Amino acid sequence: VIAATPEPPYLAVIFSSQRTRCAEGNADERGYAAMAERMVELARLQPGFLGVESARDAEGFGITVSYWRDEAAIAAWKAHAEHAVAQRLGREAWYGEFQLRVCRVEREGRMGRP
Amino acid sequence: VIAATPEPPYLAVIFSSQRTRCAEGNADERGYAAMAERMVELARLQPGFLGVESARDAEGFGITVSYWRDEAAIAAWKAHAEHAVAQRLGREAWYGEFQLRVCRVEREGRMGRP
Repeated sequence: VIAATPEPPYLAVIFSSQRTRCAEGNADERGYAAMAERMVELARLQPGFLGVESARDAEGFGITVSYWRDEAAIAAWKAHAEHAVAQRLGREAWYGEFQLRVCRVEREGRMGRP
Repeated sequence: VIAATPEPPYLAVIFSSQRTRCAEGNADERGYAAMAERMVELARLQPGFLGVESARDAEGFGITVSYWRDEAAIAAWKAHAEHAVAQRLGREAWYGEFQLRVCRVEREGRMGRP
């Protein structure tokens, strides 16, 4: 679902990742899915959270973009205790490779319009 | 696949979209897939192109992030004749909903590390 973000400027965190496994229905995948869902629920409760968008393909490559009011909001979310546990699990088990980019959204585009 | 981008700063275009249909194997879907692949090939040839990442889930929600050296590179790609045709088809047929955000990547993050 497309996030209903406010007028720019605001911040975006682009998290690109390759899952180590993506066998549907196995215990590891169920654990991952539950944690990913919990992290989205938890992020929504954080001060300065503006929205999130996420897609993962059949090969396990995924992009999650979360939107935030300011750097303080991003720093607080990164330091959140339950999120810190998820980050460690992600680094050690769930992701074969990942990249995180912090961006300032400057404008919205208008595809195909002059 | 995670894009091998240079050190920030550079620009990112986050394109979030919901496909109108995603029935695998039908003619519309094959046409879309061919055009999407062609656009990535063509983008790679543009001056100032730095990389692209893309994921679309089973429900047809997708995120494509393309990375660019500067605004001039983004403007030239938006105006590219073949890309303009694809944008029009996207707006009129392929996407039920979409959003395009232009961002400045300020830093890379380090998930789960202090």
